Amino acid sequence: MDVQTYIDGILAKNRRMLAKTITLVESTLPEHQALASSIVEKLLPRTGKAIRLGITGVPGAGKSLFIESLGLYLLQQGLSMAVLAVDPSSRKSGGSILADKTRMEKLCREEQVFIRPSPSGGALGGVAAKTRETLLICEAFGFDVVIVETVGVGQSETTVASMVDFFLVLMLAGAGDELQGLKKGILELADAVAINKADGDNLEKAREARHVYDQALALLTPASRHWRPPVLTCSALTSAGIPEIWNTVLACREKLSAAGEFQIKRQKQALDWMWAMVHEGLKSRFDQNEGVKKNLPKILDFVERGLKNPSSAALELLFFLDNKTTI
Amino acid sequence: MDVQTYIDGILAKNRRMLAKTITLVESTLPEHQALASSIVEKLLPRTGKAIRLGITGVPGAGKSLFIESLGLYLLQQGLSMAVLAVDPSSRKSGGSILADKTRMEKLCREEQVFIRPSPSGGALGGVAAKTRETLLICEAFGFDVVIVETVGVGQSETTVASMVDFFLVLMLAGAGDELQGLKKGILELADAVAINKADGDNLEKAREARHVYDQALALLTPASRHWRPPVLTCSALTSAGIPEIWNTVLACREKLSAAGEFQIKRQKQALDWMWAMVHEGLKSRFDQNEGVKKNLPKILDFVERGLKNPSSAALELLFFLDNKTTI
Repeated sequence: MDVQTYIDGILAKNRRMLAKTITLVESTLPEHQALASSIVEKLLPRTGKAIRLGITGVPGAGKSLFIESLGLYLLQQGLSMAVLAVDPSSRKSGGSILADKTRMEKLCREEQVFIRPSPSGGALGGVAAKTRETLLICEAFGFDVVIVETVGVGQSETTVASMVDFFLVLMLAGAGDELQGLKKGILELADAVAINKADGDNLEKAREARHVYDQALALLTPASRHWRPPVLTCSALTSAGIPEIWNTVLACREKLSAAGEFQIKRQKQALDWMWAMVHEGLKSRFDQNEGVKKNLPKILDFVERGLKNPSSAALELLFFLDNKTTI
Repeated sequence: MDVQTYIDGILAKNRRMLAKTITLVESTLPEHQALASSIVEKLLPRTGKAIRLGITGVPGAGKSLFIESLGLYLLQQGLSMAVLAVDPSSRKSGGSILADKTRMEKLCREEQVFIRPSPSGGALGGVAAKTRETLLICEAFGFDVVIVETVGVGQSETTVASMVDFFLVLMLAGAGDELQGLKKGILELADAVAINKADGDNLEKAREARHVYDQALALLTPASRHWRPPVLTCSALTSAGIPEIWNTVLACREKLSAAGEFQIKRQKQALDWMWAMVHEGLKSRFDQNEGVKKNLPKILDFVERGLKNPSSAALELLFFLDNKTTI
């Protein structure tokens, strides 16, 4: 099939073509990648209209149930949505994608909802790159909301935060050990924190946690001077607080738009993405250099044992690139 | 002068030779850099014994007075020290280094103390690279403690945190606007937070701030599972709390050493540093490529306006490297 067939299929809202295009994006075959790249390029003018929402949280925070609850609410509001999962841990656990789908069983059955797990295997940067292009394709398809879910313990959160309009961090009450799993720096990426499982006996504890997180976030520097990340409580079980969270997403979008910051944020995200891909490309050329490959283990060993100055080691490695025309 | 002359001078604790070697490290002339690189390389076996302490804080947190107060305390303990300032803002303000020296006037007069401002001008990465080598030279010279000061509003904090054993963040009481100047992510780099100016009328407020920061830090993931960053109060004016801060630095070192983590941290820092320099080198080759230089403005414009997919833009730019043998 040629580029136009894929594009026509997507613009005609053909879901099988949507799935096929994403499979193409996820393929590691060079010819598939070239084709996928042309499709994304041609679809670009059709993108940009969805609300891009990133959701993270440690395992146990109840992400899947939360997304199901939020998704059902959005359906009530007449909104269609795509849910993309970036889950590097699934490579290890194997079954988590299946588990996710099972946990979102109500949402799965809806016509207006498209759920797509991340491809397993491959470098994380690669997975995230594919997620970003999948997001664009889903947007061109016409979904009102694209949710990107990430697991909260890996390195994908910064990348996901850099491709969405709003980054929501799900937490649980109790600042104890169960929260230690959240990766360093993620709290500072949050546009809002939601304390989940605020129901039953847990309600009071959730309110206390809300207060503590609110104080903590006040000490962190917000990404925008037009938006101070709020802390909310919710229950994916009873759906309490879910509408408030969605209204917060909308309020943030409105505030940033009014301040002229929304468009600037998306432009900056596109540029940051380009640079991240450039750096990844440069690094991969470096890694594939024969001289580097041959000498790296010894040099790493010397640096580690304090026998070689890291700066000189770097210069030595870079020197191999200059003596080769193959990079 | 040849490499050995510099090395002999440093090992003989000749302070003029120390200053000259650092000037060589800071020079941008290629022949100076090559010489400096050889000197650092040869001094490496003599490094590693000092306590490396990084200190940051927003302007107004009282860094200079704090360092003077801590320095005088260390002198009482019989410890010698070097104070290195990384202050990219000095390029703008011009006078801040001089101001620093004036504010540390008591410390300046001490024989056991060596104060060295950062070189002005040049890329930040470059300044930090020179600071790291200066740190190694000071260590080989035999200082017991090397303090690296950074201003807290730039991009140098992450770099400085990655070259020291202990990263101390100075704060003031009051979580209001005056703290908004602290760069995103810095609080998460802290091995301890000290609320300065805990004296006079401010004492009660400082204690409250300590409590709030303590709760906030509990929500952030610590870098080591053997060290939970404490929040302390101090007064650079009255020296209250200064001994406690120093004891905290020593306690952390002891804990990490006992857990076998101290040596691993330093090895990891050396490797991280090498990779940072490799990335900087790769980026600079990219920037100097003729094809990239010529086409970058147009490509950036297209990406910014959403007319080009960032991933394709990156591939296009990387393509220029393949067609040239000069990179």
